[in-house]
Amino acid sequence: MKPRRPSALDAAESCLERIAAREEAVLAWAFLDPELARGQARALDAGAVRGPLHGLPVGVKDILDTADMPSEYGTPIYAGHRPPWDAACVAAARAAGAVILGKTVTTEFATMTPGKTRHPLDPGRTPGGSSSGSAAAVADGMVPFAYGTQTVGSIIRPAAYCGVVGLKPSFGTISRSGMKMAAESLDTIGVIARSVENAALLLAAAAGRDDLLQIPFLEKPSLGVCRSPNWPQMSPEGIEGFEAAVSRLSAAGATIANCELPPEFDGLDRAHGRILAYEMSRSFAHEMAHHHSRISPALVELADLGLAMPHAEYAAAVTYAEECRKRMVDLLRDLDALITPSATGEAPPGLGSTGNTAMNRIWTLLYGPCVTVPAGRGPAGMPLGIQLVGLADADARTLAVARWVEEKIGTDPIFRK
Amino acid sequence: MKPRRPSALDAAESCLERIAAREEAVLAWAFLDPELARGQARALDAGAVRGPLHGLPVGVKDILDTADMPSEYGTPIYAGHRPPWDAACVAAARAAGAVILGKTVTTEFATMTPGKTRHPLDPGRTPGGSSSGSAAAVADGMVPFAYGTQTVGSIIRPAAYCGVVGLKPSFGTISRSGMKMAAESLDTIGVIARSVENAALLLAAAAGRDDLLQIPFLEKPSLGVCRSPNWPQMSPEGIEGFEAAVSRLSAAGATIANCELPPEFDGLDRAHGRILAYEMSRSFAHEMAHHHSRISPALVELADLGLAMPHAEYAAAVTYAEECRKRMVDLLRDLDALITPSATGEAPPGLGSTGNTAMNRIWTLLYGPCVTVPAGRGPAGMPLGIQLVGLADADARTLAVARWVEEKIGTDPIFRK
Repeated sequence: MKPRRPSALDAAESCLERIAAREEAVLAWAFLDPELARGQARALDAGAVRGPLHGLPVGVKDILDTADMPSEYGTPIYAGHRPPWDAACVAAARAAGAVILGKTVTTEFATMTPGKTRHPLDPGRTPGGSSSGSAAAVADGMVPFAYGTQTVGSIIRPAAYCGVVGLKPSFGTISRSGMKMAAESLDTIGVIARSVENAALLLAAAAGRDDLLQIPFLEKPSLGVCRSPNWPQMSPEGIEGFEAAVSRLSAAGATIANCELPPEFDGLDRAHGRILAYEMSRSFAHEMAHHHSRISPALVELADLGLAMPHAEYAAAVTYAEECRKRMVDLLRDLDALITPSATGEAPPGLGSTGNTAMNRIWTLLYGPCVTVPAGRGPAGMPLGIQLVGLADADARTLAVARWVEEKIGTDPIFRK
Repeated sequence: MKPRRPSALDAAESCLERIAAREEAVLAWAFLDPELARGQARALDAGAVRGPLHGLPVGVKDILDTADMPSEYGTPIYAGHRPPWDAACVAAARAAGAVILGKTVTTEFATMTPGKTRHPLDPGRTPGGSSSGSAAAVADGMVPFAYGTQTVGSIIRPAAYCGVVGLKPSFGTISRSGMKMAAESLDTIGVIARSVENAALLLAAAAGRDDLLQIPFLEKPSLGVCRSPNWPQMSPEGIEGFEAAVSRLSAAGATIANCELPPEFDGLDRAHGRILAYEMSRSFAHEMAHHHSRISPALVELADLGLAMPHAEYAAAVTYAEECRKRMVDLLRDLDALITPSATGEAPPGLGSTGNTAMNRIWTLLYGPCVTVPAGRGPAGMPLGIQLVGLADADARTLAVARWVEEKIGTDPIFRK
């Protein structure tokens, strides 16, 4: 007798059951039709194995298009919008056998203004954003993994707040065809998952990268501890958690070096802010012209800032960022990755903001892969994360480091598996 | 009495009249609703001046979204598709006062397979592509300027074949929000117009770049004559036209230096081909999965090639292209621009292909601005163009050179102005 193949329908039902029990509290989903998910699962169970994601449910941040579900981008402007296609990464996941379970909540256009999602451990706290629903759903055991996107800190921060793994690959790794653009030279599609291995699995399918299916083995990593130019914004519990994690990794055998960013990198935050405002003001030209009153004041302000910015200021920021990317090659010459906090501390109380992006902006701009791995909890009982940052296009190596770190620090089994 | 403002309605009517007379022969338009155009024009005439394009009609390549017109991307797959937004560059043009006249014909997804458009001077010849309708419509006097896009040679070649000005700005100059993506690191939005000045006007509005509204004055340019690694593919009439243009520019006072690309650039075509296939295979994942039989065999073949390509091959091509971009800075150190053919010769007979892209691929990959200016005719009476290529982000300077060249070589007054 052949061993029974794991059933796609069983996997989907398990997710749907958890969602039925918990969605009222977490509000992670922008759209979910159980019958649509079951139909996909039944079709997969009836057919041949399609690929490495066969039968696995995937959540899709609602900034990415889906042909069979609404795609609303976190704004009432596009309520009910039905695109005629799947985003490239959604199509790739389906081709690899995934069940697209539903759409997860995004902030407005994946920018600042929060959606409805709450932190799975404390409904009074933000789950982080902009990939709020993806992080909360994965953390709460509603789905094994989900797509997110990061333009500032929108994958790493919510994943860290929620105690799961977040992976922002190198800029350009996953095609953005079918994504609602915000800032073209920053927007990066990535993954939120329960383990580094699972994150790599979905990344490999999304990017069409067989070479990422197998995370390389790493005996002992060389890590550069980077306390970042924004270190003064760290909370006491964030600092404590970070230093404790570094000590544990050192004790576990990692070679640890200090690797503060030299003063030449001090302008990264400012450059990021300029590029963000300039590019967003252009991306949202249609919405600014026709739906002005339905855009949040914060986004209007950012877009206005971008429109008023002289091009030379933007161009200087772009050039500066390119120079810093080159400098990173020297900085990481003898290192497998940098290790740096994923966020300034625990998920903060309140639902009016998705938290401080100070530990994320510069890494997004530097284009290298970022992976957050759970690293204990803070005094409020909220998860903390530790972030590995690699050189642009060193995704496999950075994933290897992240898996090593995950193994040594141990995942925090606070959530339903 | 105040001088009467030029009427948007008059401008639109003049275009509509020409279209009524000539569209049957040229087939430049994928969608055109005269009443929709008149409505926009009347609204503009009734209101305050909006910006530098006030009342000017613009054609939009049908690879760019429009909220009030179908956006079909040159494929039956999306027949009748109505996006809920304008592409960013369309919204920017409207904000500057333009009348969006209609959608111009694109090849299938702005790739290889031609649409219905014919050359305005000879219905048996291709107008070039993929911006076929934009080039033909502008050349035929149906609209003063139009948006095009270039991933291989899709602006410069059709503009040259049709005897008009084509402008592919530096990569990243115009936001691609609302464009149907083909190859993310190559797709570039640009402009086809009847003069360099008009091209710069639409570019400035599209990019939100006031600094490009005024083309700087240039006394005498230093030009590097580049016969390109693909020179053996030039037709005799192409070579003759090019050398004649160079002589005229030299006689007009330009400093002319020989500037062949060194052997280090020999891999550019190959790198471009790899990046194109790899990225397209991902961009079109949805269409390949769900509409396979309605995609042309040529595009399926290219996408399959991209899917089969090991990532390392793609990554090597990306790295190589970056190195060549750096080398360009040295190559152009003492030059205002390179001068090189816009195409291998006249628009070839036949409608089964949009012509040879050999004079375009490498420049698209190098990211700098390219401008084609009309430069006489070949023995078949078809227009020839001459191409100016600048350093990435040196758009103003390259436009200055192009305007100088246009002034000296003289525009070819073969088309209705």
